[in-house]
Amino acid sequence: MPTTVSGTILQTPEPGILQVLEDHVVTIDDEGVIASVVPRAGVVADRIHDTNEVLIPGLIDTHVHAPQWPQLGTALDLPLDQWLNDHTFPLEARFSDLAFAESVWASMVPSLLRNGTTAAVYFASIHEPATIALVEACIEFGQRAFIGRVVMDHPDGTPEWYRDPSPSESVDATLRSVEALRSMSDPLHLVQPMITPRFIPACSDAAMEGMGELAAATGVLVQTHCSEGDWEHGYVLERHGCTDSESLDRFGLVRPHTVLAHGTHLTGADRKLLISKGAGVAHCPLSNSYFSNAVFRARASLDSGLRVGLGSDIAGGPSASLFVQCQQAVTSSRMLEDGLVPGVSGIKHSRIDIPTAFWTATVGGADLLGIPAGLLEPGRVFDAVTLRIGEGSTVDVWDDFDDWDRTFEKLVRRSNPSNISNVWVQGKCVTNQDPT
Amino acid sequence: MPTTVSGTILQTPEPGILQVLEDHVVTIDDEGVIASVVPRAGVVADRIHDTNEVLIPGLIDTHVHAPQWPQLGTALDLPLDQWLNDHTFPLEARFSDLAFAESVWASMVPSLLRNGTTAAVYFASIHEPATIALVEACIEFGQRAFIGRVVMDHPDGTPEWYRDPSPSESVDATLRSVEALRSMSDPLHLVQPMITPRFIPACSDAAMEGMGELAAATGVLVQTHCSEGDWEHGYVLERHGCTDSESLDRFGLVRPHTVLAHGTHLTGADRKLLISKGAGVAHCPLSNSYFSNAVFRARASLDSGLRVGLGSDIAGGPSASLFVQCQQAVTSSRMLEDGLVPGVSGIKHSRIDIPTAFWTATVGGADLLGIPAGLLEPGRVFDAVTLRIGEGSTVDVWDDFDDWDRTFEKLVRRSNPSNISNVWVQGKCVTNQDPT
Repeated sequence: MPTTVSGTILQTPEPGILQVLEDHVVTIDDEGVIASVVPRAGVVADRIHDTNEVLIPGLIDTHVHAPQWPQLGTALDLPLDQWLNDHTFPLEARFSDLAFAESVWASMVPSLLRNGTTAAVYFASIHEPATIALVEACIEFGQRAFIGRVVMDHPDGTPEWYRDPSPSESVDATLRSVEALRSMSDPLHLVQPMITPRFIPACSDAAMEGMGELAAATGVLVQTHCSEGDWEHGYVLERHGCTDSESLDRFGLVRPHTVLAHGTHLTGADRKLLISKGAGVAHCPLSNSYFSNAVFRARASLDSGLRVGLGSDIAGGPSASLFVQCQQAVTSSRMLEDGLVPGVSGIKHSRIDIPTAFWTATVGGADLLGIPAGLLEPGRVFDAVTLRIGEGSTVDVWDDFDDWDRTFEKLVRRSNPSNISNVWVQGKCVTNQDPT
Repeated sequence: MPTTVSGTILQTPEPGILQVLEDHVVTIDDEGVIASVVPRAGVVADRIHDTNEVLIPGLIDTHVHAPQWPQLGTALDLPLDQWLNDHTFPLEARFSDLAFAESVWASMVPSLLRNGTTAAVYFASIHEPATIALVEACIEFGQRAFIGRVVMDHPDGTPEWYRDPSPSESVDATLRSVEALRSMSDPLHLVQPMITPRFIPACSDAAMEGMGELAAATGVLVQTHCSEGDWEHGYVLERHGCTDSESLDRFGLVRPHTVLAHGTHLTGADRKLLISKGAGVAHCPLSNSYFSNAVFRARASLDSGLRVGLGSDIAGGPSASLFVQCQQAVTSSRMLEDGLVPGVSGIKHSRIDIPTAFWTATVGGADLLGIPAGLLEPGRVFDAVTLRIGEGSTVDVWDDFDDWDRTFEKLVRRSNPSNISNVWVQGKCVTNQDPT
């Protein structure tokens, strides 16, 4: 039978637009889909949130490297190639050990849920058992997820102890992992596969071709990295004589809802190409500060109609919280506009605000992935987070001058797991504090 | 009688250098000063921390606008002058209401302590009662503090409803607040006064002259803003025909341990001037991203020998945590080095690392202020923080590959009040969890 949850809802139907639904009741059907959202007046709800809590849509992290979880927050004083080869690849290679993988997933998935991340787009490792174990963990802990076994086979771009033995094995292993995922018991339909070539420097042309064919044949969504930094951008120009977007498109990988991580070096023509195909960018502002040699043109991309979600890029971005990423998206956009040295401006009209960053973390991510989430409105799934505000929380509210706009900005900038009281995915409460 | 605390100590005696003292015992004398720090072997300590906790020196926030606490995290999509005139000055003007001021201090001081900030350098408001109430709050809650009643009297740079009526009243009110502070009962000697002209645009030349004379006559330390952004930098050039540093020096305000907030627009000559006088900068990286049109040259400043502490610039920097500021200091330095747009580099050798940022938050701040804090070593005060690490904390530790360097980077990047277990100031535990 339907359940009802009441509270004040804060959400962003459009970039930069905060919608406030004070003291509303959400009715959720047996499938976890929202049937109605109406003012509470007179309606008796199963779960009532008072004025010290607000409801927001669940956060959608569109770029997570799951096996990098143990190194979250470390080694970030290194350039990308050193960080990859000396730290990241050796760590990922350890996921051949299934027990280790399971211990990491059992730490990571609940932690992301506690941070309010109701849906995540995961790069797993090259290991099929570890990948499937991640699917199991998401189903068990109740997180919506897109999960891809990583393809990387290029002998120059990968270490011999962490790569696929051949392009055909890349294709076969990807197909096996997609089929294994699809055959698993997942009553709430939480998990979907992704075709996941790591990035062009790590993949042979044959593997990329195989991934494009597989995407066309299966309809499985694609994720990869795209135009991340000076080195990577230059590498693709030299190897393929074109930008990442053009190259990926030639391989048939730029498709509707393809998730391209970073995109800091996209050209105007690249953006047009991605828009025409329905692909989009996972914007990872904190990671970009470390590895991208540039700030993603968030404002220009949104204005142009490009799909944009928000991503942590764990562990390139040293935080598990999309609230932190929202703040950094705004901060970086402001720096892009203002410049780095006195008297030298950046690019005009680059700044975004908190409601725009939050939109990328909710509606933008849902739109990028083609899922009915990101807003609490009829027809969408009830993926939601309850946040404590006011006395005793991390978000103080000064009654006489904090309106909802100010309170919303505070809660996005200052929330952390300690003021997140409950998290729901597909209508089910998945946090321990107060389970249904 | 002396108390003893044991645990593993992580601290940074030099910028970029992590010192690890595994399982040591700190003996603290009756005045709260460290008498010895020795390996624990055999010594029985009053307070023993096991492997799930570490001890670090308390954090020193060298720039806080106390009356801006209620707006922490809001209105940061505005340029500095709008943010000041439309939001900040109206809020600060409310501190004429002593009861309101007391309610804010009672929220802010314990919150900063919970964030690990054992010492703070405060701008109060122009109101003497609110300023004295802040002194009382710091003594009551046990926070080390430098507190200044704000001077602002310039008819062009301040609103008529929030300014001193005359330069002489600026001087008189400052002197009265210094004397009132010095006459208060403060058994642990926690609070010191500061002479606090807001910044040149808000002060008449006569008021600035008066402040310089007062500093010379009383020996009270000075704090103000310096070279914060394009607008402010240009304003001083036009009004005084020189940079902020030169102008402040002419007024006699650049003295040993003068705290100059921001300094993003300092020239090489400015740095030399400040070094020769023993003054230094409160580096506020998150605030600078919003209001300074440039990144502070942290690496170059440290290399040149300039004193550098870390500051939140509450509420210009939307976080109460110096851990967050450490992360942003590293992030901003990396962006300064890497540039903002593809293919255009920033300034080489600009990046700093986490142990350097942490040094500014501890030893750097203590050195800037001339106080024996910032390190847990004999002769310094026991201002310290205990952090939970590992299982159940925000900082996971993977035993087989997380060494102390990695663990330290994680704990600086990922700590928040939920993994801070105890905070001590002058040898006294000031948090509720486990008071001594």
